[in-house]
Amino acid sequence: MFVDYSLYLVTDRGMLGGKNLYKAVEEAVRGGVTLLQLREKDVGSGEFYNIAVEMKKLAGLYRTPLIINDRLDIALAVDADGLHIGQEDLPLEVARKLLGPGKILGYSVSNQAEAVYGEENGADYLGAGPVYHTGSKEVAIEPIGPAGLKRIKESVSIPVVGIGGIGIANIGEVKESGIAGISVISAILARRDIEEAARELKSAWS
Amino acid sequence: MFVDYSLYLVTDRGMLGGKNLYKAVEEAVRGGVTLLQLREKDVGSGEFYNIAVEMKKLAGLYRTPLIINDRLDIALAVDADGLHIGQEDLPLEVARKLLGPGKILGYSVSNQAEAVYGEENGADYLGAGPVYHTGSKEVAIEPIGPAGLKRIKESVSIPVVGIGGIGIANIGEVKESGIAGISVISAILARRDIEEAARELKSAWS
Repeated sequence: MFVDYSLYLVTDRGMLGGKNLYKAVEEAVRGGVTLLQLREKDVGSGEFYNIAVEMKKLAGLYRTPLIINDRLDIALAVDADGLHIGQEDLPLEVARKLLGPGKILGYSVSNQAEAVYGEENGADYLGAGPVYHTGSKEVAIEPIGPAGLKRIKESVSIPVVGIGGIGIANIGEVKESGIAGISVISAILARRDIEEAARELKSAWS
Repeated sequence: MFVDYSLYLVTDRGMLGGKNLYKAVEEAVRGGVTLLQLREKDVGSGEFYNIAVEMKKLAGLYRTPLIINDRLDIALAVDADGLHIGQEDLPLEVARKLLGPGKILGYSVSNQAEAVYGEENGADYLGAGPVYHTGSKEVAIEPIGPAGLKRIKESVSIPVVGIGGIGIANIGEVKESGIAGISVISAILARRDIEEAARELKSAWS
């Protein structure tokens, strides 16, 4: 399956300042987001499922693949296009086996060893970072910078997406690393005009 | 598959006062617990998976079926014997479909309508309660009492297990409702001698 990783939006309802999640995502997709990851850290399984069902409808409307963060059960339950897991989630090989071969499996990495492990154990793409310091998430790991991103990219043959503090100001040096795309949260969701923010990033990337 | 529901232990690490979870569960199983439910509410997916892997080994050693609370992904990942879901978790019919027919699916109910819904949508057994007030869990629902338990039991043909505040003091009136067993947390885990607590409940039930 061809997947366009160029502008990958990860959701974070905490960024929206009360704005409706689906409306925000719809604006982002209209502005050019190519891939969606639904991340929900503070809801029960039933609520996560309900949100994922709605997000799947929205993503389907715009033919944008929907990836679920962390929760394989939710990904299976809504027949999402894929699952993204981190180092603290289910083991990669277990997730690969249960998800099946037809779905997209993403894996978060911060160094070459994790990247190689990811490629060898079933990941379809890697989310590499944090590239820069970020306010989106509690991250204990030091930023890897564009140089770290380039080293990761060169250690594997699967697509690599940079994540962490990427925005208009640094998108140029990120792109020079040769990766497949950027994964953003606040650079889109924390902006007042979400559609315009997505459009600017899309245009800066191309 | 025959399942002995008579003494069903639900784990709660918060009850253990620093005691090792596996050691506590092993003592409980030695004392006569017939079924185990692993419930973890405050850990990430990776840690839940690791705990479930260890619990599966322990349960296997004692040939005690292991049910996972809430998380279908964990149940699938460790090939547990079953899954228990509540009203706020994945929809019952979705869980049934993804879990497959060979596994045990439990469903929490508080009234007859939920019980009938559970039986008609794939539950193998029902956890009915809270029977009494309980300190184990934040419960917004008023206790249903032995009479409520009896009404639920009589409205379905699948096994019903009572849960919530059940212990030595009230096990007699609970058993009179005709249910298949009792589900306990604190009546075993909060006791200093866990094995003895299980043995007393087992003997009181028989």
